[in-house]
Amino acid sequence: MEFLVRAENRLPPETPAERREELRSGERARAMELREAGILKRLWRVPGRTGWIGLFEAPDPAALHDALVSLPMSPWLDVHVEALAQHPQER
Amino acid sequence: MEFLVRAENRLPPETPAERREELRSGERARAMELREAGILKRLWRVPGRTGWIGLFEAPDPAALHDALVSLPMSPWLDVHVEALAQHPQER
Amino acid sequence: MEFLVRAENRLPPETPAERREELRSGERARAMELREAGILKRLWRVPGRTGWIGLFEAPDPAALHDALVSLPMSPWLDVHVEALAQHPQER
Amino acid sequence: MEFLVRAENRLPPETPAERREELRSGERARAMELREAGILKRLWRVPGRTGWIGLFEAPDPAALHDALVSLPMSPWLDVHVEALAQHPQER
Amino acid sequence: MEFLVRAENRLPPETPAERREELRSGERARAMELREAGILKRLWRVPGRTGWIGLFEAPDPAALHDALVSLPMSPWLDVHVEALAQHPQER
Amino acid sequence: MEFLVRAENRLPPETPAERREELRSGERARAMELREAGILKRLWRVPGRTGWIGLFEAPDPAALHDALVSLPMSPWLDVHVEALAQHPQER
Amino acid sequence: MEFLVRAENRLPPETPAERREELRSGERARAMELREAGILKRLWRVPGRTGWIGLFEAPDPAALHDALVSLPMSPWLDVHVEALAQHPQER
Amino acid sequence: MEFLVRAENRLPPETPAERREELRSGERARAMELREAGILKRLWRVPGRTGWIGLFEAPDPAALHDALVSLPMSPWLDVHVEALAQHPQER
Amino acid sequence: MEFLVRAENRLPPETPAERREELRSGERARAMELREAGILKRLWRVPGRTGWIGLFEAPDPAALHDALVSLPMSPWLDVHVEALAQHPQER
Amino acid sequence: MEFLVRAENRLPPETPAERREELRSGERARAMELREAGILKRLWRVPGRTGWIGLFEAPDPAALHDALVSLPMSPWLDVHVEALAQHPQER
Repeated sequence: MEFLVRAENRLPPETPAERREELRSGERARAMELREAGILKRLWRVPGRTGWIGLFEAPDPAALHDALVSLPMSPWLDVHVEALAQHPQER
Repeated sequence: MEFLVRAENRLPPETPAERREELRSGERARAMELREAGILKRLWRVPGRTGWIGLFEAPDPAALHDALVSLPMSPWLDVHVEALAQHPQER
Repeated sequence: MEFLVRAENRLPPETPAERREELRSGERARAMELREAGILKRLWRVPGRTGWIGLFEAPDPAALHDALVSLPMSPWLDVHVEALAQHPQER
Repeated sequence: MEFLVRAENRLPPETPAERREELRSGERARAMELREAGILKRLWRVPGRTGWIGLFEAPDPAALHDALVSLPMSPWLDVHVEALAQHPQER
Repeated sequence: MEFLVRAENRLPPETPAERREELRSGERARAMELREAGILKRLWRVPGRTGWIGLFEAPDPAALHDALVSLPMSPWLDVHVEALAQHPQER
Repeated sequence: MEFLVRAENRLPPETPAERREELRSGERARAMELREAGILKRLWRVPGRTGWIGLFEAPDPAALHDALVSLPMSPWLDVHVEALAQHPQER
Repeated sequence: MEFLVRAENRLPPETPAERREELRSGERARAMELREAGILKRLWRVPGRTGWIGLFEAPDPAALHDALVSLPMSPWLDVHVEALAQHPQER
Repeated sequence: MEFLVRAENRLPPETPAERREELRSGERARAMELREAGILKRLWRVPGRTGWIGLFEAPDPAALHDALVSLPMSPWLDVHVEALAQHPQER
Repeated sequence: MEFLVRAENRLPPETPAERREELRSGERARAMELREAGILKRLWRVPGRTGWIGLFEAPDPAALHDALVSLPMSPWLDVHVEALAQHPQER
Repeated sequence: MEFLVRAENRLPPETPAERREELRSGERARAMELREAGILKRLWRVPGRTGWIGLFEAPDPAALHDALVSLPMSPWLDVHVEALAQHPQER
């Protein structure tokens, strides 16, 4: 099933550049794995913000939860999830 | 998977008593069927309101959607759904 | 560019079934055309609601506007649009 | 009487892993006791978030309050409670 | 247990004066009965509004619900209830 | 005149236990004085939260303000006040 | 004591011009009386809206309530009141 | 001085096409006059919605109010205005 | 033109008393100057809160901005401004 | 295409004056470049606040994002963007 995920990034602006870069590259690497596993299907930036909107696919909400908390930035993400129902037009 | 469903009932207060009763008894009958099918697990009243909070179980959001729109009161319900993830304590 | 579109459907519940069906089938037909034109990319139901969430692609917001108001249900839709920025991971 | 409890967890992301683990295991132990006492009936994760949704049963709101503040994580929880009324269908 | 109840009155302004008066006097009579039964303890007007704030006492939320829907104005009331916990200072 | 007062307590969870206890006992002592002065009429806990809801009586909003800021916890309280109008049923 | 009053005007746009004018002139006349009685101290328009913001003075919230509901437009006004406390700088 | 004006259009979807067109063409004509008078400086559509966002210039809020209520669609517009302050970079 | 200004005061409760008093007395002195200049016309306390509501008069929003940021407490104030339009009844 | 951008500035009030000035002058310099590049078309202050409202033009949301995060104050800005559609009156 598919989920629309919206994440605000609360990493403090004062975070040292090195720590920030470490988190970002870890984030990219883990996102790549989630893409390859078919869990992360699309990812967008919300213009002007550090957060993102993503389209995920997972067998159930607990599996989605596990994927989201596996992101290194996860402790600073404020995440809201919407379960999406298949539209009859796409059956 | 389980869903927490919150429904506000927007049936106009001016609805004739007969029509209202017809909808309510249809609602009860259909809810009973959903219970027997294991889709509706718990149902509560929000005190002072005509809406309800329900705990549903369905294989996916589309199946939940079909169950919810099968309720005769459905055209007047303002429904919000939250997908619930199994908590590790309950595994 | 891509847009995330969220539509609530305010068609009154008292709308006659015939009129409702006419609107729905017109909606399906027009959505099909927008898909074929590459404007409507994905469409989901929000479980329990008559509205939808869609992923659209259009050259600019005015073109998106024209596509959205071309839907027969458009006068009853309460639409909110978010412009999505391409994420560096998808470049 | 039953209560629907929604808790957001405001524990700072910078909390040392050891302190965090200590709080979590204390939380698990206390939740287990509340389950055995029949106060905590169900517990869910909200996907992507560190908070939870729970179904509690307590003789009155003061007893519920005492149960909630007995959780070791309690000082960091932002809790909202809804009193649920038994639905006639479940009488 | 005590409940703080907040009611907005959605009776349409166009309601004929006679119908309005009939509802109001029925409301007063029923409120008087709820006072005598010890269920309605205090009642206030919110200045400038037709709704009210009330302090109720009932054995459980279902009993409160029954009291609230017994008010003749009930179909037009938009009611929100908060369960109040006894404060240690008042034990 | 009566006021409904709602206070959220923003005292940081990291506040040392000793400081916290000192504030709480000062709070209890001052609340007792406000009760004896007839300013604080009722006090409730909001289940699961550290804040409170109170029913106050004071000659005017300035006197209420002085009473509220006399509470030792006052610098950490986020307070909202509603002026209550006497209901004709209670005249 | 002084009150800040904010009123949204929900008079339906379809109201006949004659009825609308009748209400408006009644409103002006009653407002004039409230000014002369020292209850209405200032009145502003919120640009682009049919509602208003007013500064009122009344001995208590019940007297303010009576003044507000004496306005002929009152059944269509959505009113919110804030009790203002005298600032020490103005003592 | 400049104002940012946001208008939602609440004209009922059931309005006959003729009446709707009459209002729209009146709206265009009046907007043209406001442009020529230097009051309306820019106008945008919010994609998917019938309302608009406009940049206005007027000597004071009362003059802006008069301009806004001179629009034939005005009774159905839900308008919010923000006064904009000149930015030092544009002095 | 007149403005309704609402300020929440975000000065941290942990601010040393000396610093706090220094800011407050500077605030009083500057407010006095703004009164004498005819910019600050009225000032109220919101009961229970450290912020205030003020009625200001300034030739334009930029002048109001300059007045507001001249307050020593300004960096901690969360300010919202509404431009008020003269009401025809006060012309 | 044009975008309406609203930025709240979360730079902590405790930031040293020197650091604050450094950020502001960097902000001015970069804004000047964005103006010359035709990306920043208008900029306003929201009276009483440190944030701003801007009218931007960029080929797509990703280009707008790059422009916004190129501002030195960007890590402290809480930015919301609305895509504006050209209004037929301005074609």
